[in-house]
Amino acid sequence: MAKNLSSKHMVCLVSSIILNILSIINLYVGGGGWDLSWTRRAATEAEAVAAVYCSGHGRAYLDGLVLDGNLPVCECNSCYGGSDCSQFNLTCIADANGGDPYFLEPFWMQKAASSAVVVAGWHRMGYSYHDKSTISAELERHIRKLHALVGNAVTDGRHILFGAGSTQVLMAAVYALSPLNSSSSPARVVVSIPFYNLYQLQTEVSNSVQFKFEGDTSSWMNYSDYANANFIEFVTAPNNPDGKLNKAVLHSFYTKAIHDRAYYWPHYTGIPAPADDDLMIFTISKLTGHAGSRFGWAVVKDKAVYERMARYMELNTMGVSRDTQLRALKLLKVVLEGGARDLFNFGHETMSSRWVKIRKTVSMSKRFSLQEIPPENCTYFNKIREASPAYAWLKCEREEDKNCYTVLEAANIIGRAGKAFGAEDRYVRLSLLRSQDDFDVTLQHLNKLVLEEGGSKTI
Amino acid sequence: MAKNLSSKHMVCLVSSIILNILSIINLYVGGGGWDLSWTRRAATEAEAVAAVYCSGHGRAYLDGLVLDGNLPVCECNSCYGGSDCSQFNLTCIADANGGDPYFLEPFWMQKAASSAVVVAGWHRMGYSYHDKSTISAELERHIRKLHALVGNAVTDGRHILFGAGSTQVLMAAVYALSPLNSSSSPARVVVSIPFYNLYQLQTEVSNSVQFKFEGDTSSWMNYSDYANANFIEFVTAPNNPDGKLNKAVLHSFYTKAIHDRAYYWPHYTGIPAPADDDLMIFTISKLTGHAGSRFGWAVVKDKAVYERMARYMELNTMGVSRDTQLRALKLLKVVLEGGARDLFNFGHETMSSRWVKIRKTVSMSKRFSLQEIPPENCTYFNKIREASPAYAWLKCEREEDKNCYTVLEAANIIGRAGKAFGAEDRYVRLSLLRSQDDFDVTLQHLNKLVLEEGGSKTI
Repeated sequence: MAKNLSSKHMVCLVSSIILNILSIINLYVGGGGWDLSWTRRAATEAEAVAAVYCSGHGRAYLDGLVLDGNLPVCECNSCYGGSDCSQFNLTCIADANGGDPYFLEPFWMQKAASSAVVVAGWHRMGYSYHDKSTISAELERHIRKLHALVGNAVTDGRHILFGAGSTQVLMAAVYALSPLNSSSSPARVVVSIPFYNLYQLQTEVSNSVQFKFEGDTSSWMNYSDYANANFIEFVTAPNNPDGKLNKAVLHSFYTKAIHDRAYYWPHYTGIPAPADDDLMIFTISKLTGHAGSRFGWAVVKDKAVYERMARYMELNTMGVSRDTQLRALKLLKVVLEGGARDLFNFGHETMSSRWVKIRKTVSMSKRFSLQEIPPENCTYFNKIREASPAYAWLKCEREEDKNCYTVLEAANIIGRAGKAFGAEDRYVRLSLLRSQDDFDVTLQHLNKLVLEEGGSKTI
Repeated sequence: MAKNLSSKHMVCLVSSIILNILSIINLYVGGGGWDLSWTRRAATEAEAVAAVYCSGHGRAYLDGLVLDGNLPVCECNSCYGGSDCSQFNLTCIADANGGDPYFLEPFWMQKAASSAVVVAGWHRMGYSYHDKSTISAELERHIRKLHALVGNAVTDGRHILFGAGSTQVLMAAVYALSPLNSSSSPARVVVSIPFYNLYQLQTEVSNSVQFKFEGDTSSWMNYSDYANANFIEFVTAPNNPDGKLNKAVLHSFYTKAIHDRAYYWPHYTGIPAPADDDLMIFTISKLTGHAGSRFGWAVVKDKAVYERMARYMELNTMGVSRDTQLRALKLLKVVLEGGARDLFNFGHETMSSRWVKIRKTVSMSKRFSLQEIPPENCTYFNKIREASPAYAWLKCEREEDKNCYTVLEAANIIGRAGKAFGAEDRYVRLSLLRSQDDFDVTLQHLNKLVLEEGGSKTI
């Protein structure tokens, strides 16, 4: 009886020990040797929200709407609906308008463990970092490291300044390059058509004594007093909307250029050489895909210009949210792992495959055409490669299709009209960096439109 | 022998079962029933950094400098040094200058588990929330709830708009209240002395065609064309620097007021009634103490004004970082628990106890005096109470002490000179909402100064 009990005990003991070992493995090996305490609640909450099932066509977010129960609801991609985003709407409208860079979302799902960040309740409550600045020195160091690794910008001996997306940095740059002396006439802010219209809208909303939006760069090239006038020229390379590697057009002593380099990453273009402009602007929106985080930066050669920009940032927002800087640092750490190959391979492959598909569709059409960009040498991938820009700059070739936006709209595709870029409405910008669902539906509708064209040709 | 073994087994079995139960409790009760996976690494990292020992006089942060090893270094409070912040510098300079609201840091340490937030790598990558806005609906709902609970602002039927701290919201407000018609003369931006000089600096840096800083409100009261001119009056209540509940001074058809309500919370003042101004500005900086997060908001009556402000926000930064909005939501959820009593009790008690101490010190002096603020009824605490403003507005009473800043500087106290508030240099602002260390050292140095005064009087 005692022996019997003892052997039963033996079984219990062994299973109990195994259970214990499993718990210990789970706690200490799986978790890096730390028994979690105050972070457990937040971690559990985040995992529960991430586990909400949205059929792969939507996502629940920690700050989403909570309808009933404790968990936020699915937010479905366009064309999908239902509580779990499983219902596809065949006749839906394809959204190819905004530049939301969801094409990189699957990358961050793959990097879930390394890219998550816990923000403690007491994280960075004050106005400044320990060095009295409003800029995280660690983040700045990682940005410099990334530019050196990718080879897309010279940062040695340059000043780096942060802003809320490239958006705020652009505003600071125009302010800093305008004449200090308010008795001089306002600087003329110019840009080559087609251009990202934020430049114009920002300049206009500022309604400044010091600068004024004056339209297309080329219209000023023959201006008689060109050499003596103050110009601020926006140069976007790769360009939004057409992906071309633009260069500055105006060159004079009083002309300053703002180089918007938001898209100068291997996802979109070959990197022929490190950009070495006086004032360059970058953003994580088009690098890591985190447009919502609002984090951008400038690389500035001239100290006085940098200081005026910093002054603007200080008075406009007192720098960038320290929470955002913490997250950007975490994201860049993940990007930098293994020479940044994972991100740029993923980004380049995704964009290239979308371009192969849209080119194939448009090549079957006589009604539409796409921009042509010559292949570039890419020092990062160490090969000559096709461009795979963020946007298709689609042209309606038929004489009667003067408004290409409405042509596409009739086919249930919402792009952005050429007019919004200072160009003819014969052009439409189609965003290629949105979610796979958005791209798929856009392509599907465009295919249909092109096929109908074939049909109409045979009549 | 068998029996002996069996009783040994019994002990083992019981301890093993206990161990198992403890593991299970730890995993499932402590952690809310979830076995963590992808969040574990970030959680472990955050806990390891939080556990870095800085002697209670400093803190290590997740994005701090890493010198050797894997953990960031301690960032010590002023007057403390050494790798673990254990060395106190007796002759150090007391920092009573900036408004960093570290007095609330211990509150957030107490609320570690409920206030932490995990940001997933894929959190809110796009430009907008699901309702196409750049404003979290959940966060807006919590802000309205908080105002209703505290009773410090009417929000029913009002528009709410977010910005990067009150800083950006202030800029948007001036823009939105200035004349639309650019042919009219610029609005005169005015404020009563003493005032927070950001208002002036922001207006000047904008260098706008539409508005211009024109100094002290009172100097315009006898202006002959007052009723026909455009004025934008800043009204700060409680006022920075002196804590007074200011009211608008100018009243005419063309005068618009911006009510800066950053300090209108029970930490600092009685809440006699909900503020019901046309345009009110708030910030979490002085509410939860998260100045570094850069999150503020406006409560706006007029739809057209709200829309112009929203337009400014859109073009200036495309809204507030979604990461920051997520964190602000988490913080407000914690604040709202239990009717917000925990936060406001902590804040009120801390500020009041600091005021008791500084009043006691200054009451022993004939050389210095403090502002007098009448007690107010507080509908939140349901009692009449003394004000406990964020800043002491110290006056040097001696004829020869024309520069009070230098008098304090000689005693190793750095305040902010009266001049910075448009006032006489006979005044200095001393910040009372910084860390306990900063307050203690400031008080210590001030005590010494007052004691020396007694000594010199007896000579």
